[in-house]
Amino acid sequence: MSNFPTDIEIAQNATLVHIKDIAAKIGVSNDDLEYYGKYKAKLPFHLQNENPQGKLILVTAMSPTKFGEGKTTMTIGLVDGLNSIGKKAIAVLREPSLGPVFGLKGGATGGGYSQVIPMEDINLHFTGDFSAIEKANNLLSAIIDNNLQNPKHSLNLDPKSIAWKRVMDMNDRALRQIIIGVGGKANGTMREDGFNITPASEVMAILCLSKDLEDLKIRLGNIFIGKTFDGKAIFARDLKVVGAMAVLLKEAIKPNLVQTLEGNPAILHGGPFASIAQGTNSIIATKTGLSLSDFVVTEAGFGADLGAEKFFHIKCGQSNLKPNAVVIVATIRAIKLHSGLGENELKTTNVLAINKGFCNLEKHIENIQKFGINPVVCINSFPEDTEDEYNEVKKLCLTKGVHAVTNTSFVDGGIGSVELAQKVLDEIDNTQNKFKPLYNYSDSIEQKIKTIASEIYGADSVEFSTKSRTQLKMINELGFNEFSICMAKTPASFSDNEKLIGRPTHFTVTVREFEIASGARFIIPLLGDVMRMPGLPAVPNSERIDIDNNGKIIGLS
Amino acid sequence: MSNFPTDIEIAQNATLVHIKDIAAKIGVSNDDLEYYGKYKAKLPFHLQNENPQGKLILVTAMSPTKFGEGKTTMTIGLVDGLNSIGKKAIAVLREPSLGPVFGLKGGATGGGYSQVIPMEDINLHFTGDFSAIEKANNLLSAIIDNNLQNPKHSLNLDPKSIAWKRVMDMNDRALRQIIIGVGGKANGTMREDGFNITPASEVMAILCLSKDLEDLKIRLGNIFIGKTFDGKAIFARDLKVVGAMAVLLKEAIKPNLVQTLEGNPAILHGGPFASIAQGTNSIIATKTGLSLSDFVVTEAGFGADLGAEKFFHIKCGQSNLKPNAVVIVATIRAIKLHSGLGENELKTTNVLAINKGFCNLEKHIENIQKFGINPVVCINSFPEDTEDEYNEVKKLCLTKGVHAVTNTSFVDGGIGSVELAQKVLDEIDNTQNKFKPLYNYSDSIEQKIKTIASEIYGADSVEFSTKSRTQLKMINELGFNEFSICMAKTPASFSDNEKLIGRPTHFTVTVREFEIASGARFIIPLLGDVMRMPGLPAVPNSERIDIDNNGKIIGLS
Repeated sequence: MSNFPTDIEIAQNATLVHIKDIAAKIGVSNDDLEYYGKYKAKLPFHLQNENPQGKLILVTAMSPTKFGEGKTTMTIGLVDGLNSIGKKAIAVLREPSLGPVFGLKGGATGGGYSQVIPMEDINLHFTGDFSAIEKANNLLSAIIDNNLQNPKHSLNLDPKSIAWKRVMDMNDRALRQIIIGVGGKANGTMREDGFNITPASEVMAILCLSKDLEDLKIRLGNIFIGKTFDGKAIFARDLKVVGAMAVLLKEAIKPNLVQTLEGNPAILHGGPFASIAQGTNSIIATKTGLSLSDFVVTEAGFGADLGAEKFFHIKCGQSNLKPNAVVIVATIRAIKLHSGLGENELKTTNVLAINKGFCNLEKHIENIQKFGINPVVCINSFPEDTEDEYNEVKKLCLTKGVHAVTNTSFVDGGIGSVELAQKVLDEIDNTQNKFKPLYNYSDSIEQKIKTIASEIYGADSVEFSTKSRTQLKMINELGFNEFSICMAKTPASFSDNEKLIGRPTHFTVTVREFEIASGARFIIPLLGDVMRMPGLPAVPNSERIDIDNNGKIIGLS
Repeated sequence: MSNFPTDIEIAQNATLVHIKDIAAKIGVSNDDLEYYGKYKAKLPFHLQNENPQGKLILVTAMSPTKFGEGKTTMTIGLVDGLNSIGKKAIAVLREPSLGPVFGLKGGATGGGYSQVIPMEDINLHFTGDFSAIEKANNLLSAIIDNNLQNPKHSLNLDPKSIAWKRVMDMNDRALRQIIIGVGGKANGTMREDGFNITPASEVMAILCLSKDLEDLKIRLGNIFIGKTFDGKAIFARDLKVVGAMAVLLKEAIKPNLVQTLEGNPAILHGGPFASIAQGTNSIIATKTGLSLSDFVVTEAGFGADLGAEKFFHIKCGQSNLKPNAVVIVATIRAIKLHSGLGENELKTTNVLAINKGFCNLEKHIENIQKFGINPVVCINSFPEDTEDEYNEVKKLCLTKGVHAVTNTSFVDGGIGSVELAQKVLDEIDNTQNKFKPLYNYSDSIEQKIKTIASEIYGADSVEFSTKSRTQLKMINELGFNEFSICMAKTPASFSDNEKLIGRPTHFTVTVREFEIASGARFIIPLLGDVMRMPGLPAVPNSERIDIDNNGKIIGLS
C-alpha cells in the first residue's frame, strides 16, 4: 500500500457527475435543486414523505481507537455496494466539522475509494450550514447580553443563572471558559461564559430534530436561557429572537445532495460528534432519503454506546423512524488494542489478542441486540490483517448469533462491500428484528441515565456530583423530566475513563454537571472530564494544509 | 408615500433574471460561473485585467446622520441610470455585515426601487464570504493559543504582547474585552482578548487588498501576532497556519455576481464599515468590474472623510486604480441636522438651515477637490423636500465650482438618476481631474495621521495617549513606517466627537491606541472612544424579523 494514493489525491482525480444527473437518479428534477456550484445542491422540503417506505440501515462501530475505524468509509462503501448489486440505495450522513479538519482527526468524507465528493468543499464550508447554525446560536447570546445591558427593556435575568453558551466551529480550548463583559459599563455585564464547538450547539440539535420550519421555530422558542432574579424561567421566545434565528437557518435546514466516488447519491445534513452531541444527520435528511430511495445507509458514531444509543433514543424517539438493520464496524487493529496490546505490537498476527480484545465488540453486539436488532459486523480490512484473525472474529461473532464479514471498500470501492450488502439485506428480511427503545421516556432523568449506564455501558452505578444534583433538582422543577438523555462521554471506553479499554466491569460513571437542551428536548449529562469544546493537538493538522497559486489544495484528509 | 412598499416587499415582488443571463450581458460565459442558487454566482479570477480600461466612479457622502443618506441606493440608481442612457455600467459594492442587519441600521442592499437582489440572501449569509473570513481569523487565534499551551512546540510568545483578536459578525459589546483560558491548565493560558466585528478583521482587509491567491498568502503570512519574551516579532507565517487560512479563503476571494432590480449586473465582494475598517469592496472585484464594463460605480462610506480618504490612500495606494469621478451623496434632512436643527424640526421648509448646515457638505467637497477631483453632489430626494431647499444647495455648490443634482432613484429606479449620470459623464471628460494622494507613504505614521487630521478633518492638532505613544515606538521599531493609515473614528463628525456636527473648527483629535494590520499594510489609529465591535440598540432590529412556515421573510430592511 506504500504507493496507495491519499484520500485527497483520489478525490481530486475523480470525475464528478453534474449534480443534476445525480438528482435524476433519485427522481429529483433540476427545478427542485438549488445549486452550490456544479456538484452540490440543496433539496427542498417537499421531497420528504411523513411515512416513507425505504429501509433504514444504521452503521455504527465498536469503541474506536484514535486511528478511527473507518465507519464513514464503510457506510459509503455499503451504499456503493448495494447499488452495484442493483439496489437503489442512498447515503445519508452528517456534515464534517472544521474542528477535526484542522485538529487531529481530519475531515469526515470517508477514505480511499469510498468517499463522498467534492471532498474539499464538504470538509471546508460546504453549503454554509454550520456557519448559519453558529450565527443563530451566537445571535441569541448577543441578545441575552443586550438584555442585561438595557434596564428599561430587561427581563430581570440573573447573569449567574444563564445556561446558554456561545459556539465556534473550531478546536479552541482557550474559549472553553471565559469572562465576558470586561472593561466597564460600555462593554456589557461581566459574567462567566464559554464556547462549545458548533456541532454541540443546541441549535444544531434542534435543526437535526425538527420536522419543518414551524417545528424549528417552536423548538428555538423553547430554548432555556436562565432565570430571573425572582426565579422565573426565561426562554428564547421571551427574548423576541426566534424569528431572526429562524431566518438565519432558512437555508441550513434544507438537506444537501452530493455524490459518492461511484456516482451514487449522498445526502449530507447536520452535525457530528455523538460523543458530546446528538451527533447524527437530520430527521429531514433521513426522511428525504427514505422517500427517494429503497435503502438509506446512515451512520452514528463514535462507538455504538454513544452513536447508536442516541440514534435510537433521541432521533428515533422524536420521530417515527425505526432502523431495519444495524452494522457494527470493527477493525483487527482496534480489537487488538482493546486486548491491551501497545501501538507498536499491532503489525504481527495475534489471534490470542483478537480473542481477548473481542470483549469490546461483544458488548456492542449485545447492546444492539437489546434494542431488538441483530447486527451485522463489518470488519474494515487492512493490508496487515490475516485470515486467521478474520476467522477468529467471525467465529466469536457467530457465538453471539451474528455474522461478521470483511470489507475492502477502502481499496475496492463498492465491490468491496457486496458481501456486507447481502448480509444486511438478509437481516432486513429477518422477521425477528423489531426495534424497541431501552428506557421509558416517562422515567426520571436520573433513572434514564442509570439505565444507559447499566444496560449500555455495563456500569455498576452512577455518581452525581454536588453540582449535578443541584441542577437535577432544577431540571425537575422546570418540568423537563420526560426529555431524552444525550450523554457526553469519552468514546474511547464504555466508562467515563478513556483508559478503561476492552469491556470494563465494576466501574462507576460520574455525572459532573448538566447542560439543558429544552428546545431539542434532551438533557446532557457531562460524564467524567469530557469537554464540549475540543483542543488542538501540539502539532495540528492545519500545519500540513496548503493551497498553491492555482487553487490546488494539499494536506486535507 | 404612506402606501409606498417596504424595501423587502419591493425585492420580493421583483422578477429576477437568471444569473447566467446577467453574466451574458457583460460577456461572461455560463462555464465561468459557479452558481449559488439561480441568482448568485462566483466569478473566476481570470476575468480581471491588470490594467482595465473602464472608468471608475466613486460614490461617497457628506457626514451621515443616524437615518443614513442613501449612498448605496444612489450608487445602484446611478448604475441603472447609466445603463438606461445606453452606457455599459456595473455596480461594484461591498457585502453587508450581519451586525447592522440585526442591530439598528438594517441591511446594505440599497432601498426602494434601487436595490441589488436577492436582497434577503445578500443581507444574510450570501455566499459565505464573511463566515470564511471569520473562520480564517479565528483559526489563527486558536493556533496562537495552542502555541502558548504546548511548551515543546512553543515560539516563546509573550501572552501579554499578543496583538491579534478574534472576530464575530455580530453586534456584541460583551465580547469587546474578555478573559480567555479561564479554569486551569487544560483550558489554555489565561490572557486578555477581545472580539472585533468581522468586517474589521485584518483578514477582511487582506482579502480586499490582495491581487491574487499568491499575494493573499504573502499578506496572511505578514500578519503581526506579538513578541517573544526576548523581544522577537512573531508573524502568522511563524505559526505555520498560512496555508490553512488560505484554504479557508479559497472561495471567499472570488467576487460575487448579482443583479439590480432593473437587471443590471452588480458585483458584491468584501467588507463594509469605513468607520472602523478599510471598508470598501475588494481590488479584485473592482478590477473585474473595470475589465467587464465601461463604467464601474462603487461606494465608500460612511462620509467622505472616512470612506473616500481610505479609498484613495489605501485602496488606490495599493493598486494602480484611480477614480475618474466622485459623487457626494447629501440629503436635505442631513444638511438641516448639521445646521443644528432637532429631529422634530425637519419637516418644514427651512432654507436658512440649509445655508447654515451646508458647511458640512462644503468641507467634503473641498476635501475631494484636494485629491484632484471635482465631485458631483447628488441630493437623494425625499417627499418632504422643497424646490427652494434644493435650489439653495445647488447655488451653494456652484460657489465651490460643483454641480448638484437631485436624484429620485429610490422612487423611480434608474430613470431617477439620469441627470446625475450625465453630470458624472461630464466630469469624467473634464481633463482638469487628475487624482493624487494627499500624503507621502514615506512620511512617518505620526505625520500621515496629522495630514489626514488637518487636511481632511480640519483639526488643529492630534493628541497621542501614553499608550498610543508606546505603540508608535514599537510600530517604528517593527519597520511598519511606510504603511497607510486606516483611521477608526465616529462617522457622525469630522472630529472624534460625534456631537461636533456641521464643520467643526479649533478641535483636537486624540489617538487612544493603535491596532496593527501589517499584512494589509496599514496602521489603525483608534480615535476618541470608537469601538471596532459595535453594540446592539435597546430594541434591536432582530425583534422585527420573522419567517413564516412557507419561508417568507418579514422585517429585513
